[in-house]
Amino acid sequence: MKFFKVLKKDLKTNARVGRLVTSRSIILTPVFMPVGTKGTVKAAKVEDLYELGFKIILGNLYHLYLQPGIEVIEKAGGLHRFINWKESILTDSGGYQVFSLSKIRRVYDEGVEFKSITDGSSHFFTPSSVIEMQCRIGSDIMMVLDECISFNKDYQYTLSAAQRTLKWARLSLEAKKSISLTRDSKIFGIVQGGFIKEIRKYCAESISQMDFDGIAIGGLSVGEERALTMEILDFTLNHVDREKPSYFMGLGDPLGVLEAISYGIDMFDCAMPTRISRNGSAFTTYGKINIKKSIYTYDYNPLDEKCDCYTCKNYSRSYLKHLYKSKEILSSILLTIHNLYFLNKLVENARYAVMKGCYEEFVRNFKRNYTNNADNKKH
Amino acid sequence: MKFFKVLKKDLKTNARVGRLVTSRSIILTPVFMPVGTKGTVKAAKVEDLYELGFKIILGNLYHLYLQPGIEVIEKAGGLHRFINWKESILTDSGGYQVFSLSKIRRVYDEGVEFKSITDGSSHFFTPSSVIEMQCRIGSDIMMVLDECISFNKDYQYTLSAAQRTLKWARLSLEAKKSISLTRDSKIFGIVQGGFIKEIRKYCAESISQMDFDGIAIGGLSVGEERALTMEILDFTLNHVDREKPSYFMGLGDPLGVLEAISYGIDMFDCAMPTRISRNGSAFTTYGKINIKKSIYTYDYNPLDEKCDCYTCKNYSRSYLKHLYKSKEILSSILLTIHNLYFLNKLVENARYAVMKGCYEEFVRNFKRNYTNNADNKKH
Repeated sequence: MKFFKVLKKDLKTNARVGRLVTSRSIILTPVFMPVGTKGTVKAAKVEDLYELGFKIILGNLYHLYLQPGIEVIEKAGGLHRFINWKESILTDSGGYQVFSLSKIRRVYDEGVEFKSITDGSSHFFTPSSVIEMQCRIGSDIMMVLDECISFNKDYQYTLSAAQRTLKWARLSLEAKKSISLTRDSKIFGIVQGGFIKEIRKYCAESISQMDFDGIAIGGLSVGEERALTMEILDFTLNHVDREKPSYFMGLGDPLGVLEAISYGIDMFDCAMPTRISRNGSAFTTYGKINIKKSIYTYDYNPLDEKCDCYTCKNYSRSYLKHLYKSKEILSSILLTIHNLYFLNKLVENARYAVMKGCYEEFVRNFKRNYTNNADNKKH
Repeated sequence: MKFFKVLKKDLKTNARVGRLVTSRSIILTPVFMPVGTKGTVKAAKVEDLYELGFKIILGNLYHLYLQPGIEVIEKAGGLHRFINWKESILTDSGGYQVFSLSKIRRVYDEGVEFKSITDGSSHFFTPSSVIEMQCRIGSDIMMVLDECISFNKDYQYTLSAAQRTLKWARLSLEAKKSISLTRDSKIFGIVQGGFIKEIRKYCAESISQMDFDGIAIGGLSVGEERALTMEILDFTLNHVDREKPSYFMGLGDPLGVLEAISYGIDMFDCAMPTRISRNGSAFTTYGKINIKKSIYTYDYNPLDEKCDCYTCKNYSRSYLKHLYKSKEILSSILLTIHNLYFLNKLVENARYAVMKGCYEEFVRNFKRNYTNNADNKKH
């Protein structure tokens, strides 16, 4: 089967429903992919993820390379066996982490040198070495090494980083071709180009012309205003090959996801939904709430009355508030289940809306409820 | 059905198999009861506990009284509904916590005044108030308020604390009789008496003569040598009513549990098995191991090759070590499941051995393996 097929396009927006087929899973898009940075989606068991309906999660090469190390995972029989996950894994190349986490790093045309955040040791990632390592751990979808720049870099800096990223993209494809794989694996290019449209267009078109299986949009949602994110995203997507799946790296808030879908994004990942779960926050139909507030002490309603997740079917806000206040691990477990369910349901509903031809109406309704400021409502 | 029935006695030791029947559960003894201090067995979902086969867990009145407060639980419809647990709950009176956690406390004949560990506020527990609160939250087995003394108190101090505990025991029974319950609830007396046999005997006989449903042995395993614990335990059990179930408060290490069973203990609880799970330790057939050791980096065996628990069937020591090193919540989840499974299996095997008349042999075999120093073995 073809890796990606568009099943239905929305008439009024660029939203679409599609299907990804990896050697392990059939994945309907738009899809939200939970982040399992270090080989576990934080606070979730794989059975929780299966039950929630997830078919693909992320792993992060930068973190897995430093701990436990590629060899440990390879000798375990690959990442899937190591972490006991039977569906697909998309691995991030670690490019973003090299540039955001490592205080000391040096970029060469050949790759990037960085010091480990844990022990200060020196390491060198090249476009081909990160592909080779992703192959060794058995990634289903690999990402290329890219040079991530911070917000508001000037034209020359942005262009030179973009050119290096494009050069690395070509080297990544060559590297993958030189490796013989026992199981099919896909590779995505990444469009950079900062916030300069001319360079974005150049990158989008260049990456589109290369032999990638999918196209990721990188370098957005890095601190800029949401309106600018979406303007650049919309612009960029008008210059990528729409036959390939498009992936917005690092977006996971409900309203952002729905807007990005309307511009044509098919895949999302973000650590935020699981991170806020450990901080007592929960998405609900009527907006995000934080369970630690005193108004929830005697509130025996579920987190979200319209939600059918395990947490909402079995636990009250009162109990969840108590667990959070008591610093109990179960608090993180139950909120993670709820928030992942919420996002999965959101993209599922988005797919239905596209299929029924009413995506704009669906987004309007969702937004009206979601901006209702749930934490301040009387219950 | 009778609350407690002895089904089989071992011929060579005082070990026995029995059956407890609460309004919610049928529980075979000897039984290990996981500790759910604040309304959750740390790092476990209730489904994990059901699957592991637990029919009874503990809650702690001291902690639940301070957070979330008795009223919050009562208004939720009781502790079972609040925490979503359908089997039985034994609630500790909080006596031990008042004496061990509260730096500032004053004992009166009427009860004990203490300052909260969280906000320094003043509180007063009386024998009847703790029973009344345990009734309000719907405990299946309530414990009386007792005065816990530290190790090595002198005769006069020990005697006077014991006398107060006995007086409180009588008041507790009266308090329970004065409360009309919608659901049957049991009440256990607690034998104190420090490490002075004469006072232990006096307490054991006095508590036995009162109308309690079960008899707990308190004030042991408080820092003394294990041999002394067991000497006092054995001595005490020879002076309690053997028609009633006997409960060793705060013991949970495998060898200790098996020895206490041989003296006639039917029920155990201990926070240690779940606590060590969060510190990377695991019971195994060949002794306790700590997963953070570097010998486990490339060890793809399960924690315990003889174990059939979820963790051992699905995860390697290598992965568990990685999770622990990465401070992932899943590490605590998976080790908790394993350690609770191990203890539950241990008492289950003890019951089989008693039924088959080979308890001593079973203990000898277990001990030979368990003292094999697993962490230092070549794998």
